[in-house]
Amino acid sequence: MFNQESFRLGATGSAIRELFEYGKKRKQEIGEDNVFDFSIGNPSVPSPDIVKNTLIYLLQNTEATKLHGYTSASGDNGVKKAIADYLNQKYDVKIKDSLIYLTCGAAASLTISLKALLNQDEEVIVFAPFFPEYKVFTENALGKLVVVGYDDKFLPDFCDFEKKISNKTKCVIINSPNNPTGVVYSEDIIKKLVSILKKKEDEYQHSIYLISDEPYRELVYGNVTVPFVTKYYDNTIICYSFSKSLSLPGERIGYILVNPNCLHSNEVFKCICGAGRSMGFICAPSIFQYLIPSCLGLTSDLKVYEENRNILYKELTSYGYDVIKPEGAFYLFVKALDEDAVKFSEYAKKYELLLVPSDSFGCGGYLRISYCVSKKQIVNSLPAFKKLIEEYRK
Amino acid sequence: MFNQESFRLGATGSAIRELFEYGKKRKQEIGEDNVFDFSIGNPSVPSPDIVKNTLIYLLQNTEATKLHGYTSASGDNGVKKAIADYLNQKYDVKIKDSLIYLTCGAAASLTISLKALLNQDEEVIVFAPFFPEYKVFTENALGKLVVVGYDDKFLPDFCDFEKKISNKTKCVIINSPNNPTGVVYSEDIIKKLVSILKKKEDEYQHSIYLISDEPYRELVYGNVTVPFVTKYYDNTIICYSFSKSLSLPGERIGYILVNPNCLHSNEVFKCICGAGRSMGFICAPSIFQYLIPSCLGLTSDLKVYEENRNILYKELTSYGYDVIKPEGAFYLFVKALDEDAVKFSEYAKKYELLLVPSDSFGCGGYLRISYCVSKKQIVNSLPAFKKLIEEYRK
Repeated sequence: MFNQESFRLGATGSAIRELFEYGKKRKQEIGEDNVFDFSIGNPSVPSPDIVKNTLIYLLQNTEATKLHGYTSASGDNGVKKAIADYLNQKYDVKIKDSLIYLTCGAAASLTISLKALLNQDEEVIVFAPFFPEYKVFTENALGKLVVVGYDDKFLPDFCDFEKKISNKTKCVIINSPNNPTGVVYSEDIIKKLVSILKKKEDEYQHSIYLISDEPYRELVYGNVTVPFVTKYYDNTIICYSFSKSLSLPGERIGYILVNPNCLHSNEVFKCICGAGRSMGFICAPSIFQYLIPSCLGLTSDLKVYEENRNILYKELTSYGYDVIKPEGAFYLFVKALDEDAVKFSEYAKKYELLLVPSDSFGCGGYLRISYCVSKKQIVNSLPAFKKLIEEYRK
Repeated sequence: MFNQESFRLGATGSAIRELFEYGKKRKQEIGEDNVFDFSIGNPSVPSPDIVKNTLIYLLQNTEATKLHGYTSASGDNGVKKAIADYLNQKYDVKIKDSLIYLTCGAAASLTISLKALLNQDEEVIVFAPFFPEYKVFTENALGKLVVVGYDDKFLPDFCDFEKKISNKTKCVIINSPNNPTGVVYSEDIIKKLVSILKKKEDEYQHSIYLISDEPYRELVYGNVTVPFVTKYYDNTIICYSFSKSLSLPGERIGYILVNPNCLHSNEVFKCICGAGRSMGFICAPSIFQYLIPSCLGLTSDLKVYEENRNILYKELTSYGYDVIKPEGAFYLFVKALDEDAVKFSEYAKKYELLLVPSDSFGCGGYLRISYCVSKKQIVNSLPAFKKLIEEYRK
């Protein structure tokens, strides 16, 4: 028969995408405005105008065969240089354009990086709660996922981390600002994490790669800053996507960046080229490559997300929900009123609230609310949230 | 260490892309016009105007969050319906939109289809000469490539084919119009191939899937027609790309289509969804999805390629080269003057002629000329071709 693992992955779908599909169907049944779909991280704030203007400019002023033609498999050199220059100036680092690989978004960045590094049965450490597809992507590269626990602030449980690093550990994935909690790792947290990694590299006498999954790097609120990880740890690979910062999730554009200080950085980059090649990722969508130099460092209007966060946090707290205040990304992690988050997510559907249960994120008992939706949806959903807690507590 | 197979694939590169990179470097050294780069299938004819006009229209008239937002993982339903309707009308078939999966181009279509179907060590049959990445894509899905020989017209050696189908054969890949020969399989050839497949399915009592890789479906010359394979064989999966027909290779847009008559077609489609998910292919670039309905059945101006073909075929034959006249695609397969095509390709570089040796296509002794270049390049290259054969024969 056909491949059973592919069948399983296709038949079950991801919990997020299942709920997203349910929401689309439900909206057709009872109307767009009557479904409070908080399932998916599909940005609700339009791309900044420069995206549209640059794309139209490129279409009107670039020879079509160049604009839509193949670039090098790893991307256009000019674009890679622009990215390196931007990062070097902004973060005071020495990124090399020759170690940047343009990809079809964050998912591709991760599958490529993992396939580049992993040998069969090697281990990838992630910190719960984590983006569920990390498991799928790790297994695609024939690796094994190892899950580390969290403390009361949803930060890594470092004791557990130390225990779980083994001779088979090849990579550690971090994701800050975090999906699904909105937590941002401070410089102290990064330093603590890195000190353990270095100790374990010495102990086991081999490299452990830190893969920093950063689609939300620019999405932070207030004075929160996101440390640039290559400054703290040499064997770092950054997986970036423009999906969230520029509200372009459907267009699939991002990059992988190997820290020039990484041991054997050129060889690691070759592995990335080879892994991309083997899965058929050659040349990220070209017009979106050429868009990047005009948009580096820009974001959609983050105030909208911040306002959504503030309303939701304030109101849900006042109704009696137990909520973590997010410092970044556009997710709110709220404690389920039932120990069984899946059951509670089902129950919430009665109020047309689509909330992703936390089980597939590697921790039970919570729900993820993607608040990258219209303010109107936030405001209109509040009575439903109120009713939900009141009814459920009866 | 990192993954050795990824390293090998990244360090060696494909012969085509290596030569393409050499060409880019060489052009910088001695000027664009002085290098006759016939290495890559990067269309030289601009996209039809409707591509630019539709993209600008979409940018100006669609809400950005919708235009650039995630579609369903398998693609936008309206777009899938448009594709199904077009195919059903054009080929008098009954394709279902629910069995179409939009992808990031032909390479993605193939890697996804293979990963959907193959279990470890199952076999994939290809017909030499074949696109070299079939081997890479098959091995990515843990399968084994089995190569079948060709006859004097570069059509399948059917005796060899019968012999090589085994109990482990899971798929057969065909590619017509063919890269690298330009040969098109007639209805008779398809029927012959299918009759063998059916016999072997009966013999081994399991499905053998025919994967039809069709990026060149519309690129045929004169009265040549390309049979629509689902009409002849139930267990067919079509891998299509708009890269070549619409001159959009850099934008990565294509689709996979499962024949509704395929045994367990819905389950096969689920496998495709799962395989796409595992490699991080969710949602093909959205603006290019929305472009498709306006461009179905359209092509760039194929007369340009036909003229290039005619000039090259006539002149190279007159100089004494042994050339197969292509009926489709934009490749000319020419016999190397040395038994060692790699050596001869190196020699041709002296005349700034960049021709891909046939070895990586699974057959020795030939060179592939991609004639999707400007007419000027064709005309200017003729003295070099003439000199090459004259000097080499001395």
